[in-house]
Amino acid sequence: MCQLLGMNCNTAATIGFSFTGFAERGGRTADHKDGWGVAFYEGQGSRVFHDDQPASDSALADFLRRYPFKSRIVIAHIRKATQGDVSLANCHPFQREWLGQTWFFATNGDLQQFQPALDGSYLPVGSTDSERAFCFMMQSLRARFSGRRHAPDWLELAPAVAEISAGIAAHGNFNFLLSNGQALFAHCSSQLHALQRQHPFPTARLVDYDLSLDLGALNHRDDRMALIATEPLTADEHWLAFRTGELKVFVDGTQAWSAVNEATRCFPVASTSGVGRGVRAPAAFGNT
Amino acid sequence: MCQLLGMNCNTAATIGFSFTGFAERGGRTADHKDGWGVAFYEGQGSRVFHDDQPASDSALADFLRRYPFKSRIVIAHIRKATQGDVSLANCHPFQREWLGQTWFFATNGDLQQFQPALDGSYLPVGSTDSERAFCFMMQSLRARFSGRRHAPDWLELAPAVAEISAGIAAHGNFNFLLSNGQALFAHCSSQLHALQRQHPFPTARLVDYDLSLDLGALNHRDDRMALIATEPLTADEHWLAFRTGELKVFVDGTQAWSAVNEATRCFPVASTSGVGRGVRAPAAFGNT
Repeated sequence: MCQLLGMNCNTAATIGFSFTGFAERGGRTADHKDGWGVAFYEGQGSRVFHDDQPASDSALADFLRRYPFKSRIVIAHIRKATQGDVSLANCHPFQREWLGQTWFFATNGDLQQFQPALDGSYLPVGSTDSERAFCFMMQSLRARFSGRRHAPDWLELAPAVAEISAGIAAHGNFNFLLSNGQALFAHCSSQLHALQRQHPFPTARLVDYDLSLDLGALNHRDDRMALIATEPLTADEHWLAFRTGELKVFVDGTQAWSAVNEATRCFPVASTSGVGRGVRAPAAFGNT
Repeated sequence: MCQLLGMNCNTAATIGFSFTGFAERGGRTADHKDGWGVAFYEGQGSRVFHDDQPASDSALADFLRRYPFKSRIVIAHIRKATQGDVSLANCHPFQREWLGQTWFFATNGDLQQFQPALDGSYLPVGSTDSERAFCFMMQSLRARFSGRRHAPDWLELAPAVAEISAGIAAHGNFNFLLSNGQALFAHCSSQLHALQRQHPFPTARLVDYDLSLDLGALNHRDDRMALIATEPLTADEHWLAFRTGELKVFVDGTQAWSAVNEATRCFPVASTSGVGRGVRAPAAFGNT
């Protein structure tokens, strides 16, 4: 299974510390070695970096650990291929434009028999179920808000994203991070955790790397940020597990909305092998 | 005016040498210092790097000069803002998906009174006339090939791109590079040059940087590549000027198609100043 990392802040911040631990899972402390990607929003603009090399060995990932891009919303992903070959086209986050906003999407899970009718407004470039789900999500949003000339507010978007997500999540585990640069949408089928950081900031210690950081020295007392990750990245901080079927929306560094679809299931993770599949079931999986 | 650099090869190659000279124009040997970007296609996938810092001082540009991404099609751009502020959202190349292909577009020129009716299939994220032109181009292609489920071949696309380009170029100088990863489309209103490289390869010397390279030692005798640039990047090589109104299509490292729209004009470049404008007319401009 892949791993997700998201960040939403009230003022632009760097994600280097968290990304350092996260990238270790891309080949070193875990075997998510089939590529990685990270997207940053900066104002109306954005940038995304992808690589089909393991994040722990990637020169580009090393550059990002050292180079302080500041962003209010970040979505990162390390890949363990389940559907689709190991290639750049299959690396998350995926990107599409709708109503003048760049949307990024990254997911983990495994959708089965998911072949939605795509009308051509968005079509996958690669061969993953993940990108197909993203195209269907964007097509569905476009249809619901057809006739709009400007992007809807996140408060209008949230129930629509929740409903579309519930439909897709009937096909398998569908944990994802999605953003338009204004809000960070996070959905859980099987495993996702959130952490709120604000004054007083602790000294945080990475789980995956021998590194601690005094966050109080780095942040202003008004700074506020939410981190979302498949598995907690730090020890000694209070990571809160999502419920199965839960969509949370993070705005300005804090949770602003949530809803739970009680019908959503947490699917068992099959231990499979063969061409294009290589998921090893984690020792503990599911947070319900 | 901005500057463009494109590459098309029959086998994946690095663009580090040419990019080294090109990036110098982003603040050092020329004042195109309002951002830069470079897009690489790799198989079905792609990656794009943007920065709103001068390319000559950018840590990210420095990384790209040293890190050998191999690609068959590259589009690079350094920006001298004419319309739209200096920001990440206004950095070229711009990106959109159509029929499961990622399209990149970069342009220089200056379109006036260009406010096409955009139907919402693609809308600009930033505030440049360039991105507006790209959205109109993609919308127009989508309309011409409506009903298709698969991307048209470049030979079908070429006359359509030529006709749409001619319409936009009536509003001002419209030099651009456009690609879907299969072909590189290059259009000239005022200034663009192409260079064919193949066996026997010369030793090339950059115009903008004290660097020479024995291309024969780096390339196989079957390798073939076309470079396209606003101004020639190397001395001692035969850069061929495009004609005004000319669209060339490069496939597998060589020119595969061209057409000239005789009605297309080369507009004079105004020396303007003030908010959001700062074009200095080049000493020699226009290649007709």
